[in-house]
Amino acid sequence: MVRGGRMYSQPACQPWHNHEAALPRQDTRKRYSKRGMKQAHHHLTLHSGGQGLYEVTTEIAAWLDGQAVRDGLLTVFIQHTSASLLIQENADHDVLRDIETFFAKLVPEDSALYRHTAEGDDDMPAHIKGALTQTHLSIPVRDRRMQLGQWQGIYVFEHRRARDERHLALHMIGG
Amino acid sequence: MVRGGRMYSQPACQPWHNHEAALPRQDTRKRYSKRGMKQAHHHLTLHSGGQGLYEVTTEIAAWLDGQAVRDGLLTVFIQHTSASLLIQENADHDVLRDIETFFAKLVPEDSALYRHTAEGDDDMPAHIKGALTQTHLSIPVRDRRMQLGQWQGIYVFEHRRARDERHLALHMIGG
Amino acid sequence: MVRGGRMYSQPACQPWHNHEAALPRQDTRKRYSKRGMKQAHHHLTLHSGGQGLYEVTTEIAAWLDGQAVRDGLLTVFIQHTSASLLIQENADHDVLRDIETFFAKLVPEDSALYRHTAEGDDDMPAHIKGALTQTHLSIPVRDRRMQLGQWQGIYVFEHRRARDERHLALHMIGG
Repeated sequence: MVRGGRMYSQPACQPWHNHEAALPRQDTRKRYSKRGMKQAHHHLTLHSGGQGLYEVTTEIAAWLDGQAVRDGLLTVFIQHTSASLLIQENADHDVLRDIETFFAKLVPEDSALYRHTAEGDDDMPAHIKGALTQTHLSIPVRDRRMQLGQWQGIYVFEHRRARDERHLALHMIGG
Repeated sequence: MVRGGRMYSQPACQPWHNHEAALPRQDTRKRYSKRGMKQAHHHLTLHSGGQGLYEVTTEIAAWLDGQAVRDGLLTVFIQHTSASLLIQENADHDVLRDIETFFAKLVPEDSALYRHTAEGDDDMPAHIKGALTQTHLSIPVRDRRMQLGQWQGIYVFEHRRARDERHLALHMIGG
Repeated sequence: MVRGGRMYSQPACQPWHNHEAALPRQDTRKRYSKRGMKQAHHHLTLHSGGQGLYEVTTEIAAWLDGQAVRDGLLTVFIQHTSASLLIQENADHDVLRDIETFFAKLVPEDSALYRHTAEGDDDMPAHIKGALTQTHLSIPVRDRRMQLGQWQGIYVFEHRRARDERHLALHMIGG
């Protein structure tokens, strides 16, 4: 139930919105049983240049573009706890800088605040910023294109000051 | 390893908990090979009425209810960076108001704090609140029902003051 | 586009990174069509001992290890709104204590701050901490092993003071 708002399932006049509705059920079944379900794994390595948000949308889109799987679910997973993932606005770079500033203030790099200090002033804040953002993202894919909104980009949020190698595991499943 | 707690895989007396255990493996395989794997995409539009949490559980459940896919994984993805998703308690509405209040205090709508101010005092805070919550949710589904806990509801968290149209991409994959 | 960093898709010399690249496409298709896609549901119960982070990596890995599905996507979903999920460093336990301390300061257990107080001083903060962390995690799986980084562990983040029973719904889909 939507409080104070209205919710619409898409109407029949926009069949592209609704994969199931756009085709008679019989055809839908046949289509998938012919194509079958598949999956693919991939690995991306980012050489980050210290703290900040690094957009990786293009690289992920390029991988999807070459896949046998056309429709399905993409998952991006970062194999670290001091860097994280974020979907954010890709238009005004000031948005990214404001996000970095907000998190820097919320989680100060002050060793007096933490027990875990052996790996540097920026390490424990990095773990906390990671906890407040995402370790993975899943995005529906249609015709090999992520169903991102117009202003959405995928970012690696690097929380450490030093340059580092960051690993992303990608997975796509569908038909 | 569970520190200071105990972890149980579900016991045999609760076979409904464990799909694999509830059926001899042979039957499980047959069942899935007969049904095959399928997927479905959908699109929901919410006309939000300004800042707040809007429950969309019913609308998503209604879509699932009509699907050919009975068991699997549902993904809800919001195609915006100034509104987000949240699973929260659906019993006491004060919980929702307290959440709104907490985020409003944590991320003040004060243009002096941000560089990105051209779209209004509430825009940059909206992006930050989005970064602190979810752009997508994935939920296991059994017998066309989301495996939500008793008190869990799915909410769109609108961070902008103006009324707006918000788009959700839904994806279901399974058998 | 990566600002100030470099992004590499994995090179041909690391074929294990790239499932699709490692095999001629024809073989990939055959392999999956022979194996077919399957899924499995499971349920884990944690008896938590009050506030803190409880690692459940071993229990989840043990379940995966016995599955017919070898490669795919694992989803862990917590059926509560006053406990949540987190992937964090599993090496130095001080990291976990610092995370607990940070969230305790950020979301004080002070009833004067909240409307929803009937369930105790720690209930509303529990919901907020849940909103700031994760209700679900999805992790790519290869050869029945989660593609976690070397230092990553999966944790249930218990936000209530009292001992409680916490339920996790697990889902694995793949081939």
